[in-house]
Amino acid sequence: MNTCKLGLVMVWLLAGANVKSQEIKVPEAEGFDAASVPAYQGEHVLVYAHIDENLEAHLSHLVRWVRQKSISAQNVGVQAMARLLASDLESLGFSEVALVASAGHPGVWGYYDAQAEKTLVIYMMYDVQPVNPEDWRVEPFAGEVVDHPLGKVLMARAATNQKGPERAFLNALASIIAVEGTLPVNLMVLAEGEEELGSPNFPEIVDGYAERLRTADGVFFPFSSQTPSGDVSLFLGVKGIVYFELEANGAASGGPANAEIHGSYKAIADAPAWRLVQALASLTTDDGNVIEVPGYYDAIRPPSEEEVWIFNGTVAGWQRRKADVREGFGIAEWIDGISGRRSLASLTFGTTLNIDGIWGGYTGEGVKTILPHKATAKLDSRLVPNQTPDEALRLIRAHLDANGFDDIVLRKISGYPPAQTSVDTPLVRAVIGVFNKHGSIPSVSVPIAGSAPYYVFTDLGLPLIAAGMGLGAGAHAPNEFMVIEPVAGSRVAGLAEVEKFYLDLLYALAAAR
Amino acid sequence: MNTCKLGLVMVWLLAGANVKSQEIKVPEAEGFDAASVPAYQGEHVLVYAHIDENLEAHLSHLVRWVRQKSISAQNVGVQAMARLLASDLESLGFSEVALVASAGHPGVWGYYDAQAEKTLVIYMMYDVQPVNPEDWRVEPFAGEVVDHPLGKVLMARAATNQKGPERAFLNALASIIAVEGTLPVNLMVLAEGEEELGSPNFPEIVDGYAERLRTADGVFFPFSSQTPSGDVSLFLGVKGIVYFELEANGAASGGPANAEIHGSYKAIADAPAWRLVQALASLTTDDGNVIEVPGYYDAIRPPSEEEVWIFNGTVAGWQRRKADVREGFGIAEWIDGISGRRSLASLTFGTTLNIDGIWGGYTGEGVKTILPHKATAKLDSRLVPNQTPDEALRLIRAHLDANGFDDIVLRKISGYPPAQTSVDTPLVRAVIGVFNKHGSIPSVSVPIAGSAPYYVFTDLGLPLIAAGMGLGAGAHAPNEFMVIEPVAGSRVAGLAEVEKFYLDLLYALAAAR
Repeated sequence: MNTCKLGLVMVWLLAGANVKSQEIKVPEAEGFDAASVPAYQGEHVLVYAHIDENLEAHLSHLVRWVRQKSISAQNVGVQAMARLLASDLESLGFSEVALVASAGHPGVWGYYDAQAEKTLVIYMMYDVQPVNPEDWRVEPFAGEVVDHPLGKVLMARAATNQKGPERAFLNALASIIAVEGTLPVNLMVLAEGEEELGSPNFPEIVDGYAERLRTADGVFFPFSSQTPSGDVSLFLGVKGIVYFELEANGAASGGPANAEIHGSYKAIADAPAWRLVQALASLTTDDGNVIEVPGYYDAIRPPSEEEVWIFNGTVAGWQRRKADVREGFGIAEWIDGISGRRSLASLTFGTTLNIDGIWGGYTGEGVKTILPHKATAKLDSRLVPNQTPDEALRLIRAHLDANGFDDIVLRKISGYPPAQTSVDTPLVRAVIGVFNKHGSIPSVSVPIAGSAPYYVFTDLGLPLIAAGMGLGAGAHAPNEFMVIEPVAGSRVAGLAEVEKFYLDLLYALAAAR
Repeated sequence: MNTCKLGLVMVWLLAGANVKSQEIKVPEAEGFDAASVPAYQGEHVLVYAHIDENLEAHLSHLVRWVRQKSISAQNVGVQAMARLLASDLESLGFSEVALVASAGHPGVWGYYDAQAEKTLVIYMMYDVQPVNPEDWRVEPFAGEVVDHPLGKVLMARAATNQKGPERAFLNALASIIAVEGTLPVNLMVLAEGEEELGSPNFPEIVDGYAERLRTADGVFFPFSSQTPSGDVSLFLGVKGIVYFELEANGAASGGPANAEIHGSYKAIADAPAWRLVQALASLTTDDGNVIEVPGYYDAIRPPSEEEVWIFNGTVAGWQRRKADVREGFGIAEWIDGISGRRSLASLTFGTTLNIDGIWGGYTGEGVKTILPHKATAKLDSRLVPNQTPDEALRLIRAHLDANGFDDIVLRKISGYPPAQTSVDTPLVRAVIGVFNKHGSIPSVSVPIAGSAPYYVFTDLGLPLIAAGMGLGAGAHAPNEFMVIEPVAGSRVAGLAEVEKFYLDLLYALAAAR
């Protein structure tokens, strides 16, 4: 079934034969409305009751998980967390559990055989970001439940990213199995311990299970989707990304090769810092907003009919939110003063070239007169359908070379292509139906502006969705938390409802036709 | 008397009506030779003997000075050092001694009335650079005398920059006064405690004594001029400098005003980092070597006849040294492969625009995808005769504005004009004559590529020279030292000969006609 309501194709890139600028026009038309998906009707009273009766024990599992450090960047506790996850899967009755060796931290595989018709893949990450304990109001790995304006919250590293939602999901499984004896769907768990490192070895881990994964009905990532007002956002896709460094150094660009020299020698010495600046400047227009690398926009495909349909369904919500987002960032105007549909179209369908960081030479207070021997910039480009990391870098390298910047070193740091899931899949419709049952009609977007390596699953032909009731914040930051017991009157879900969402989803998927 | 041997004028800037590039051609002709200045003939046997007999006590004065911290940037010990200097001047018999209040650390004024015909101004700095003690092989303020490949050295902060040479100079005064009862010239000491901060308040301090300073015969800065091989370099001028920052921030340039935002928002958000890069890039050619700011080269005057004469005297020495300098820096080639005269001409007479540092956003390891709200660069321009800091910045500001970069913030940090002294002055000829007496015929250049705020004196019409026998190294760095007792066979002067140079100089100046 093709749920697309729209037969139009859209105007795409403008500006003549050699596409230089990117203006994305998406035709106005009826949009997708998540309320059109029937709310899930199933009632699972006994399982709900089991959760309510065991909520303290369920919370203690979350605490146990966040207490086990697993800082992938520092290799602290990573192996122990992999074993803890594997052990929990065994306790739940997963018939296959294995640590999966990789060039980096191990993956964890688990298979729960429910003798069911449908199979769901659960993507998990078990690693966490490093912490600066001095910035926290609690010990980051103590697993404390503290008071917060939103209610009682578990405040700890990984409380929301991602151990809280993940272990809540396993709690839901435990209650289903305790009450019903088994699950309504088979599960394949595939977890990685390097998500915070950019998932460098996850493709290899997925590869080893590719044939079995292909037989599944989709991939689910337990994720807290609520905002403080209780609203839910779903995204059906992610942009890809290529992250790289450009460096000018004295050995390649002329100038001092080994160390900074006295700045007065600029009179006769080439300067890597100037070369980096000039090379970077060649990549964009003066305003930094149009990529001047020939061909950079050429391969990008227009949004599909379904994407246009979904997009039109999100415009009204964006119109309501966009000023808040903009003002929250302290931004007076979006680029060129665009607003409304145009800004959302760029955010949704546009590629980017961004300077994440730049550095070289003396960056302290006051005066130090040196000619630095090296200058470096970190850049990323968000990739939209038909762009690939390697082709993006090839175009940039070719542009630099063609403009005499062959001395500039280009180092790829990481990258992966975008990923896209259709709303017209049993999994996505089940997720929306369960949200609707829980009174939170989601805002569905395609894709979000951010990136995740979901292509490893979607390239296998699987739909993938990250979703869940609940709210967390502070991922990668101090005082990360997940709401456990919201304040009275809040529309935010507490731990019990988070788990009930997950169990409803499994039943809804099992029932989907 | 005009000692210039050369009537030619030189070819100056090329490239048409609107000067864009700077190529400095200096005609080949006979050059100045320091050996042509007669060696000083005076003998001061009793004073020499007094120095030799009291060398241990003289060294103890140097140790006492370096033990007194005076870190201007951290305001550690600065007042105490000012008082110590003042007290030492009083002990020597200076009839006027005063701390001179300023907006910053105080200056020190001293006047020694020798009832002499001639008066010499001694410029001093009494502040020192901060230290990182963990990088030192001795405690930086202990004043230890240790073994070194060059001999016994005083290793301490300020051993060579500048307390060692300065207190050695005072030791020479003490011995003259002990033997002769008074000095052969009157002295005006003017010291500052903010040299390491860029001398922000020294012009104000000098202003208060301008009328008296004008009556002097010149300004002398005690300075160790020898290289490890024993050669001596003198410079008759310094370039000026203007040091400034360019900054792009979200408030002025668009984009996030308060903090970094997620990098994916580049799709619709302006980026200060790109604006800074583009603004910087507009300032130079692609190679970073020609300043594209209209008018930047226009005011520069051609080298004077005397400058050409001095220049031609230094070419041979530069030809010998230039490859060592270049290779010491790890530089494969100077700009455009220039060498010999052309490279020395640029280094001597060329203005510059240099990036000292640049920073913004994430500069750590690996991946962090942010759109920084601010990016900043530190730049300096070395100024040659007829350039001024404010006019240089005015031209840069006008160029940025004319190219649509009026959002870029330009902050002046510091700046002062160049300074130039004629070789044809009794002071300079006395200095050269005394070097010649001590067997070290100096290489004289005009100016060095570096900068110093000597204009505060030369603008009063005074010649200024920094000179002395002796060798020190490690200014602004760990393990700073001054040679006290060189190894056998070395041509480097020890403390006794350093002091003998200074006393000879005072007598030579007194005798000069």
